[in-house]
Amino acid sequence: MLEDENKLNLYSNAANNVISNLKELAKLTSNEEGAQRVAWGPVWSKSRDWFIKKCQEMGARVEKDSAGNVWAFLSSEQGAFPSRTKSIVIGSHLDSVPNGGWLDGALGVITALEALRVYSTLPPEIKSKYSIYAVDWADEEGARFGYSLAGSSAATGVLDINDISMRVDNQGKIFSQVLLENQIDINKMLDASKELKKRNIATYLELHIEQGPILESKNMPVSAVDVVKGTNRFYIKFSGQSAHAGSFPVPQRKDAFLAAAEAALEFKKIALKYNSVCTVGQVNVLPNVPTIVPSRCTISLDQRSVDILTLNEMYKEAQEAVARIAKENKVQVSWDKVFYIAPTIFNKELVSLCCQAIKEETGSRDLLDKDITISSGPLHDAVNMARLVPTVMMFTKSKDGLSHCKMEDTDVDSLQISIRAFLRLVNKVLQE
Amino acid sequence: MLEDENKLNLYSNAANNVISNLKELAKLTSNEEGAQRVAWGPVWSKSRDWFIKKCQEMGARVEKDSAGNVWAFLSSEQGAFPSRTKSIVIGSHLDSVPNGGWLDGALGVITALEALRVYSTLPPEIKSKYSIYAVDWADEEGARFGYSLAGSSAATGVLDINDISMRVDNQGKIFSQVLLENQIDINKMLDASKELKKRNIATYLELHIEQGPILESKNMPVSAVDVVKGTNRFYIKFSGQSAHAGSFPVPQRKDAFLAAAEAALEFKKIALKYNSVCTVGQVNVLPNVPTIVPSRCTISLDQRSVDILTLNEMYKEAQEAVARIAKENKVQVSWDKVFYIAPTIFNKELVSLCCQAIKEETGSRDLLDKDITISSGPLHDAVNMARLVPTVMMFTKSKDGLSHCKMEDTDVDSLQISIRAFLRLVNKVLQE
Repeated sequence: MLEDENKLNLYSNAANNVISNLKELAKLTSNEEGAQRVAWGPVWSKSRDWFIKKCQEMGARVEKDSAGNVWAFLSSEQGAFPSRTKSIVIGSHLDSVPNGGWLDGALGVITALEALRVYSTLPPEIKSKYSIYAVDWADEEGARFGYSLAGSSAATGVLDINDISMRVDNQGKIFSQVLLENQIDINKMLDASKELKKRNIATYLELHIEQGPILESKNMPVSAVDVVKGTNRFYIKFSGQSAHAGSFPVPQRKDAFLAAAEAALEFKKIALKYNSVCTVGQVNVLPNVPTIVPSRCTISLDQRSVDILTLNEMYKEAQEAVARIAKENKVQVSWDKVFYIAPTIFNKELVSLCCQAIKEETGSRDLLDKDITISSGPLHDAVNMARLVPTVMMFTKSKDGLSHCKMEDTDVDSLQISIRAFLRLVNKVLQE
Repeated sequence: MLEDENKLNLYSNAANNVISNLKELAKLTSNEEGAQRVAWGPVWSKSRDWFIKKCQEMGARVEKDSAGNVWAFLSSEQGAFPSRTKSIVIGSHLDSVPNGGWLDGALGVITALEALRVYSTLPPEIKSKYSIYAVDWADEEGARFGYSLAGSSAATGVLDINDISMRVDNQGKIFSQVLLENQIDINKMLDASKELKKRNIATYLELHIEQGPILESKNMPVSAVDVVKGTNRFYIKFSGQSAHAGSFPVPQRKDAFLAAAEAALEFKKIALKYNSVCTVGQVNVLPNVPTIVPSRCTISLDQRSVDILTLNEMYKEAQEAVARIAKENKVQVSWDKVFYIAPTIFNKELVSLCCQAIKEETGSRDLLDKDITISSGPLHDAVNMARLVPTVMMFTKSKDGLSHCKMEDTDVDSLQISIRAFLRLVNKVLQE
């Protein structure tokens, strides 16, 4: 009983620490437009230096792997590095989108730091089974070069070096050059996967904000995550013919933008039909002049589903719609597939353990697991880790479902409940 | 009979001169992407220096007015400047859009030069009634600062100095500063209208390419222009809410782009209903990231009609459609009116004279005037001149209706017919 009370105090203190650290980080790395921790830039570097210092102060051994992921380590055996025992990895990412929120990614990384602190207080007989890592994955967002999960993809061996090597940012800087400025040799990034194998990982755990409105609508502070939606992402280029806005008769035009607009509305219908999501987030029109009929319009299409067959079906229907619309609008069309990932199903035992931790924390022991489990629309580094080791995520609710913007928020009560529930989950895994 | 033959030779030689001069200019001021004579820049300056030299070589007196318009003058009275007699002004513009065509504007200016040359050969008794000007209007296109017809607006007293003074180009340079670099004081630009009054103008004539496909579809090389469509131009800003592409349910989104897309398709329906034109040429999405639901989408809307009531009605219907679509998509909307000009009806007698010249040149004396007369969708400097003096335009056909692009072209036969017909029109006006 006394031990339980100690544990509760420990978790509550940890939750308070996480929140005050999150606020400290936000102050350090945000401006009036939101968080500015875009990967590979100076503000991101500052956030990592801050994190590394916190880890070192707490007694963890810190290293960067060949892909720029930061690993903070506490061993079950005095001084052993890496440990001969198996390890539990807890992580997320410090990088943000431009004008991002204070919680996306940072919540998971800073909670991992507190998980290490809690671990450090455990008696040797509990620590003996597992060592523990906190990991800050590099460039989860892909905000600058359009390649999400770069760091965890390298560490899990699935990074496509050819795909990223020649990518450029909006200022025309080449990805490989920017990596070099961050002391990373693009040709050695995949060495991170060899380094990962040496860490002897048994389990990967990640706490994250939901970034959607489901938990709020169900009035739930926290949930387990059982599956991450698969994603199909494309650029679709419509090519018509520029013409003078005043003189060219509308019926004879080959207006690339109107074709793209029609396609975007059709994509929405397809998503609704399958109860899934799709987004046209990027739209670039050429020549983009009020008095010239657009000759070119390139749009992005992002389709997601928890079910791989649905994902394939939505893609097929989108292709059919685009072909029909292109013909009707007398424009040419080409597709460029930029990203595909199948739905990821997390480890069933860990999902169940996650639900147990939530039920204990919230005191709602009668709930069914399915009622406190949701799917994830956003991708996470956990998707990469799930290829290699048993993995699960926990979500805390997002105010108004907002993320990737400065209004991103979660009430303090829900944050504390979620952090404590997550630490319970870590404790369960350690003692398994 | 001999005189007629001389005249025909004169016109034919002049037409050949125009075409070879156009080719010379294109060589001097184009690259592989097309014409680069954007107003106020170095290539444009080069084209004007070239033009001024041609005028001076031919004996014309050349001056720039306070708005930067270039005037080349031949007097009916030896040495008189300005002339006490009334004058005929023939003009167009040498400036082009970026990556523009070889004919848009340049055809009219270089034909005006040849009209001066023809005038110089006339016997004194014919010249006695009118002096003659060729004018190269400054910045017809408004390609750099978004303000069309700047030079002719200043010269006709309708330039809004407040509107243009703080405009910036894509590099952030201020219009007034760029004008100063071109030796123009923005606060003195309207002096050009006082200078214009002294020119004692009786008539304004302009030859231009159609920039649309009507003449080609009717298999006509040339036409008179009786009316220039009125234009209503707006920016419409849709403001929704950014959200994560993977997690935010589609029915709850406030997607600013989808609202704009729906509006653009609705505008097209309105244009078709009124047998008019409308264009959404500019589309800017924020944050313009594939994985974020657009929070903001600003589109341009350009509506045109020969009839002012139709123009007003189309605007009203567009407003109603946007209000409905904004509500359905849960987004906010705001309108910014950027340009309005009522339809311009050219002088009936001059239109008739224009038709006569065309019938004589083409030998199709049985055609009705209405069959060789079309309206203009694009705006022209002639619209400004028509406020002050009897004005008419002549159009030559455009290959595939294309303009504002390097593919802009007209076959040599049609060009020659049009130039000769235009010189006949000048001759008719001189002898009125």
